[in-house]
Order: sequence, then C-alpha cells, then structure tokens
Amino acid sequence: MPTARAYCIAAPDAPFHPTTIERREPSADEVAFDVLFAGICHSDIHTARSEWGPAHYPLVPGHELAGIVTKVGENVTNFKIGDHVGVGCFIDSCRECESCLAGAEQFCTGPGRTIWTYNTLDRYAKYTDGGYSTAITVDAKYLLHIPNSLPLAEAAPLLCAGITTYSPLKKWGAGVGKKVAIVGMGGLGHVAVKIAHAMGAEVSVISQTLSKEADGRAFGASDYVATSEPGALKRLAGTFDLVLSTVAAEEDITPLVATCKRGGVFVDVGMPAGKSQLALRALCGSQAVVAASMIGGIRETQEMLNFCGEHGITATVEIISGDQITQAYDNVVASKVRYRYVIDTSTFPEN
Amino acid sequence: MPTARAYCIAAPDAPFHPTTIERREPSADEVAFDVLFAGICHSDIHTARSEWGPAHYPLVPGHELAGIVTKVGENVTNFKIGDHVGVGCFIDSCRECESCLAGAEQFCTGPGRTIWTYNTLDRYAKYTDGGYSTAITVDAKYLLHIPNSLPLAEAAPLLCAGITTYSPLKKWGAGVGKKVAIVGMGGLGHVAVKIAHAMGAEVSVISQTLSKEADGRAFGASDYVATSEPGALKRLAGTFDLVLSTVAAEEDITPLVATCKRGGVFVDVGMPAGKSQLALRALCGSQAVVAASMIGGIRETQEMLNFCGEHGITATVEIISGDQITQAYDNVVASKVRYRYVIDTSTFPEN
Repeated sequence: MPTARAYCIAAPDAPFHPTTIERREPSADEVAFDVLFAGICHSDIHTARSEWGPAHYPLVPGHELAGIVTKVGENVTNFKIGDHVGVGCFIDSCRECESCLAGAEQFCTGPGRTIWTYNTLDRYAKYTDGGYSTAITVDAKYLLHIPNSLPLAEAAPLLCAGITTYSPLKKWGAGVGKKVAIVGMGGLGHVAVKIAHAMGAEVSVISQTLSKEADGRAFGASDYVATSEPGALKRLAGTFDLVLSTVAAEEDITPLVATCKRGGVFVDVGMPAGKSQLALRALCGSQAVVAASMIGGIRETQEMLNFCGEHGITATVEIISGDQITQAYDNVVASKVRYRYVIDTSTFPEN
Repeated sequence: MPTARAYCIAAPDAPFHPTTIERREPSADEVAFDVLFAGICHSDIHTARSEWGPAHYPLVPGHELAGIVTKVGENVTNFKIGDHVGVGCFIDSCRECESCLAGAEQFCTGPGRTIWTYNTLDRYAKYTDGGYSTAITVDAKYLLHIPNSLPLAEAAPLLCAGITTYSPLKKWGAGVGKKVAIVGMGGLGHVAVKIAHAMGAEVSVISQTLSKEADGRAFGASDYVATSEPGALKRLAGTFDLVLSTVAAEEDITPLVATCKRGGVFVDVGMPAGKSQLALRALCGSQAVVAASMIGGIRETQEMLNFCGEHGITATVEIISGDQITQAYDNVVASKVRYRYVIDTSTFPEN
C-alpha cells in the first residue's frame, strides 16, 4: 500500500510531529493526487484539541487540500494526471439520501452520514486522515477541479473558506445593487469580502477594530466599520440586504440583525459553540430573517471554484512549513494570521 | 362633537372605570360606527400598565373592534350604514412611504409613523382612544369589512389575533402537505390552529401541558404535545415545515427551532420583551430560518377576514361586561381565559 508523509497530533495538548500514513491505490472510481498545500482552518484546531468532542488520535487534520493528480482509476473520465485538484471538508457520503441527491452531501442522512476528510470512520472502517499530508486518494465524485489560473497555495483555503461564504452569499442574493456586510475579517471574512465584491455587491466590513481596514478596502470593501467605536452599529441600522457573520464566538446578535434593511437576511457561518442572544422583536420591524449556513455540496463547491477562477479570487495566505503548524495554531487562536495559514507539504521531512 | 361611552384606566395600577370620550363627526373620507365588541389583547395590558414604556393616561385601550356603521362621509364608496366592520391595531399612517405603498402600514416610516388605535398622537394632535368604547370614527382606508356570516363578538379578535397569525402562516406557506406547529394555545395560538387547519396544513400544537388538548384537537390540530413531558421536543426534531411561536416570554428557542425540517421556518409572533437564546448551529443542519412577524397591513387584514368568512373561522371567546375588565386583565396574565375576552359595550353604563 502506498504511503504519504504527514503531520499528526497524538493528544489534545501535544505538538504536531511528522509521521507516515497509508493511502489507498486508487480503485476504478478513485483518483490519487499529491497534496501540495493544505490550509489551516479554525475547525482543525477545535477538532485537534478535542474541543468539539474527543478526537481519534493520532489525528492528521486538514480539509483545504490543493494538489496535482498522479493516478486515475479506469472509470474516472473527468480527471487526468496533472490536473489541479482540491478536496474540501468531506470525501464521501451515502449518495442516496435526499440531501445527497439534492447536492447537499454535507447534510447526508444516510447510514454512514457525511464522511469528513479527517477524524471520521470511512466505508473501509478506517479513520480518515486529512490534508496535512503529501498525498491522498479519493473518489472522483468528491474531488474538485481547481482552475489553472489560481495558484494552488492560495486556492487551497477556498475549499472551506471559499464555499462557506460563497454558498450563503449566492443563496441570499448578494449581487449588483445589494448592500452586504461581512462581520469579521479573518480567514472566512476576508474571502467573503472578495467574493461578495466580485458578485457585484456593495460591501462593508464590520470588524472589532480598524486594524485591517486597508486590507479590507483592498479586498473590495467600500466601507469599514469598527464595533469598538460607540454607536457604530446603531448608525448602520436598516442598512444591509445581507449580513454575513463569520464570528465564531456566541454573542448578542441583536444589534447586527438590526443592521438589516426590510426583508434583509442575517446569516451566520461562524457556528459559535454556545448560544447567542437575540431579541426576536428586532426581526419584526425589519421583517429580516436569521439563518445559518455550513460549507456547501460538491456541485456548488465546483461552481464556487469556477467563479473564483473567472474573477481571480484566492485567499490571502501565509505559507508555512510542517514544523510551524503547532505555533500556527496558537497564532490562529490569537488572531495573528493574515489571513490564512497554508502548509507547504514539500517541507515535510523524508522518512 | 359626538361622544361615546368608554372604559378607561387612569394610572398603571388603577382599576378601569366608565368615562365619556369625544369622537369626531366623520369627515368626507371617514366612517363612524358603533363598536359592539372589543377584544382584550395581552398587548392592551402591557400598554395599560406602562410595561412597554409610559402610557398616556387616561387611556382607553382596545384594538380588536367590531361593530356596525352608523354614518358615512360623502367620499366613501365602499361602506354603507349597517355594514359590519372592524378596526385593528392602527387607524392611520402616512400613506406615502415605501411601507404604506407596499400595504404594510404597520411599518410606516413617514413623518407621523403608524397611528395606533390607542395611545398615539394622531394627525389632529390628539391621543387616540381605542375600542373599549361604544363608537369610533375612522378613515375608510383603515376600516375593514367583517363578513356577515361571522358573529361580531367572535370576529372582533380576528382584527389582531387573526391577522397576526394569518400573515406569517400565509407568507411562509402553510397549506396542503405542510406540517405546521403552533406553539402556545392562548389568544393567538388557538386562532392560529384554526387558520392553519383551514389552509390545509397538518397542525400540531406545542403547549406547556395537555390541559387544552381536547380544545386544540377540536380547533383542528391532529397532534398535541406537552413540553412538560421530558424529551417531547427532541422527538419532534426535524418535523415541521413551519413553527409559529405565540409565546410572549423570552426563552431558549433552540429546541423549538430544531423541530423545523430542512428548509423550515420558525416564526415568532409572541414578541418577547427581552432577549431569547438561540444556538445558531441549530440552523445549520436544518437550513431553517428564524423570522418574526407583526400583525399585517390593511389589504391583508381584509384578505384574512374574507378567508375567515369563507371558512367560518372566529375566535373562541368569553364575553364580559365593562366592569369585568380589571379582573379580566389579571386572568389573562394568569392564562385563565379560554381563549379571548371580548367586551360587550352594551354593558357600559349610561352617563
């Protein structure tokens, strides 16, 4: 069985260390590819530290994979050796439930549910190993084409941060003539600004401070508001058609919801672990709705990648080596990254 | 100037007492009618007790009025003497703003905003007096036809409880093949059950106890669930297309939201004064949305009354006399009314 070099974590509080993992020879329906770059998502950290429940160790995280095809199974017609490809948050699902048939594989209700790219028992009864590795083998149905115009390192984060923001922006009508607020300017938020701007919307960023204002405007925002400024949100009441919150902490969302104009939408993609507060009365006058969104299905992820290819959208990244992952986690938690760490797997030590 | 007999309250903690108020001779665009019945809405109590901010005393509440036309201004073509009519929560608005033009006068943003039926300075710089009175004069544009088939006493509560529930049920698609939950079986909830059932939906009631189950089923519910039963809401997870909450207290709405099926809607019409709690993650898997609704515009209120006329829907009421209003307020707060108190103004003492 072929192997791959990888970085794994052996316990919630352990540092990452190099290891070797097994990867399958591609079956008739599968594709093997070399993972060149893997983004670090905040959810990797939650999982690796068992903050979302006990993880299966040793754990190889990573669900923002970008690389180049090396082997193609005989039934696979839509990928060939040398193709630029990516894998996102999941690599399998039942393919038969209502969600799967609707192209929403992330909500699979079939027997095995959605098989996440790491930390999940797959159909071979093996825990999946994620993208902090030099190679992976996946079913072609769960593999995405990355447009050749996009540098792979900067495209990798689109597989999670891109689809997470693209899907609700599209669903809720971000586009020409629409005012969109992006709350938070982190890994998700900065991509959301770029995508919403490319969709034609007038984009405002709502952030805690003005420290990232210049970047935000360069990414496409025409307004940048700091919530640390007293009365800032009040002045924005009734302004936006769509408010996309990437904030991961639970908070009182009432003042943000109140920035929606009549019939506007507040969408959360930050998925706070706890409970947020909301004065339901705030939804009356505005007739706004509160929604949430979680990544997107394969079809829509490909659509997002094509959109990003057409518009030249990628994440703004800091490329790191394998031995920097442990420190990078602390930096992400401390909001020190601008705006996404991407691991260069060519830095992984040979065995 | 003509007068009307009325019941008013002079201070937040005072009892109601009989009084005489002035009413206008109808102008060319106005209609005068004898108010025969007026419903008691929980919001009357909040206002009368200055719980929603200081009220203007002496106060004559009442925004569920039903009666018979006595005088018609010369420009009025759509009402005639003897017509059964009603007035709801508001009797005027700017008529020119986006909301008014869209038929959502309850969200008027014009200079004077929405003129509520009581406790609001009207265009004559006079505080409006509501429905606990024997007569009122209103602009024909804000007057509703009550179908002759509906008894006026039971129709009165439709002017608030009816439109409050009809509007979101219609907007969010309650109908044949849809599963609708009505949360709370009070003044709003019991009407909501009847309307949702008449729309063709399969209706469940979610109430604190089973004490009103027989009534709920008689009103059209095919299922009745008590939240006091451990695990009751959990068993309903993913069940409903639409959950309409009439609960006036702030609470953790997460378990209720979780009863929505994929793409479902949780709509609040209870308007809790404080802040509710919500785990935004609960909206991810279900792709449900949280919304709120507040009464409805004149056009839709007439549509609701016509619908109720066609389907024989009225509120289930207890008719009381003017001297019972003070006690009735306490009973409403203690959830002792089944299901709406309606004041018979023929019981008001002559001066």
